Amino acid sequence: MEALHQAIRERGRVLSEDILKVDNFLNHQIDTQLMAAVGQEFAKRFQDQSVTKVITLESSGIAPSFMAANTLDVPLVFARKKKALTGSEDVYTSRVYSYTKQELNQVIVSKEYLAEGDRVLIIDDFLAHGNAALGLTEVVEEAGATVVGVGAVIEKAFQEGRTQLEMEGYQVESLARIESLSNGEVTFIDEVVTNK
Amino acid sequence: MEALHQAIRERGRVLSEDILKVDNFLNHQIDTQLMAAVGQEFAKRFQDQSVTKVITLESSGIAPSFMAANTLDVPLVFARKKKALTGSEDVYTSRVYSYTKQELNQVIVSKEYLAEGDRVLIIDDFLAHGNAALGLTEVVEEAGATVVGVGAVIEKAFQEGRTQLEMEGYQVESLARIESLSNGEVTFIDEVVTNK
Repeated sequence: MEALHQAIRERGRVLSEDILKVDNFLNHQIDTQLMAAVGQEFAKRFQDQSVTKVITLESSGIAPSFMAANTLDVPLVFARKKKALTGSEDVYTSRVYSYTKQELNQVIVSKEYLAEGDRVLIIDDFLAHGNAALGLTEVVEEAGATVVGVGAVIEKAFQEGRTQLEMEGYQVESLARIESLSNGEVTFIDEVVTNK
Repeated sequence: MEALHQAIRERGRVLSEDILKVDNFLNHQIDTQLMAAVGQEFAKRFQDQSVTKVITLESSGIAPSFMAANTLDVPLVFARKKKALTGSEDVYTSRVYSYTKQELNQVIVSKEYLAEGDRVLIIDDFLAHGNAALGLTEVVEEAGATVVGVGAVIEKAFQEGRTQLEMEGYQVESLARIESLSNGEVTFIDEVVTNK
C-alpha cells in the first residue's frame, strides 16, 4: 500500500534492527486519513470472507481496524490487556508476551462478544513474532468461532510471525512488508523483489 | 443525539446508581457506524474553533474521536496511561484517578505531538467526575497549547465533571446527558426538561 510505505519511509524512525517507531501516524499520534484508507484496504482484502466481526488488541489496533469494521458493516471488538473492574467475569483469555514492551499481558474478550457462528477478522498494528495475533486466534477459537484471516498494518517479515500464522492455516494480509531494518534503513519486500 | 440515546436505552446496562455499562457499543465492542456518527457530531460542534489536533485517552476514547479528527482533517493523539518502552523520554504528564477502575493512572503525551500553537479538542467516552478530561487539559496547557473544548460521548450530569470544566472556562459538549441512573433506569436530562 503505497501511501503507507511513504508514511513509513518519511515519518517512521528505525530505532534498532528490530524496532521501527511509527508513533507519528499509528501508535500515539494517528493520521486518521491514512488509517481510514488502511481500514478500507483490509475490508477490501477480506470482503469475500463473510466477516461477522473484527477483533483487535487495545490500544494501537483500534484506529487501523475502525474503518475496516465500518466498511464491512460489522462490530469491532477490542481485546483488553487486563481485566477492567466493571467487566464481565465471563471472559475468554490468552497470554501474550510483548517483545517490544518486554511484558506478559493477558488478552481478554468478554464471552458476550464472541459467538460460535462468528467469522472473525483479526487486525493488529504490527506482525512481528506473531504472539499478539496468535493470542487473538486462541480466544476466537476458544469461543468456537472461525478466524477468517489476520491483517497487519506493518509486517516485520524478518521475524517469524507470518510463518507461525500460515502454519496454523490462517490467511495473512500485511499492508507493508518490511524485509529489513538494517543500517537504520527500512527496506520493503516489494522493493527487494523489484531490484532483483 | 437520538441514535446514541437509543443505544444507551436499548444496549446499556445500569450496574448501580453510578455505573452505566456500555461495553456493547463503546467500551469493548464498538458499534462503528454509531461511533462514526458520534465523531462527526463532535466535528460539527467544534467546526468553528480552528481545531489543529484532537486528543483522547486510550483505549475507549479512540473510537469515538477517530471520525472527529478525520472530519476536521487533523491528527488524533491518544494519551497513554503508562510509559511505553519505545516511547520518547520527552513527555508531558499528569495524574488521573479513575473512580470506576479505582486506580491512579499517569496520562502521558509525547512532547513531539503537542506544540505551543495547537488548538486542541479533548474527547473522551465518559464525563463523570471530570478527572480524565482535567488531566488532559493539564498536559495541553503544559505544552502551552490551547484547549478549545471538551467533548464527551456520555455525561453523568449528576456528577461534578461539567461544573469543574466550565469553572476552568472550557466549552463542554456531551452527546448524551444522563440526569440519573436511579432505580436501574437511565433518565436523560432532555427528557426531564421535556416532562416538566
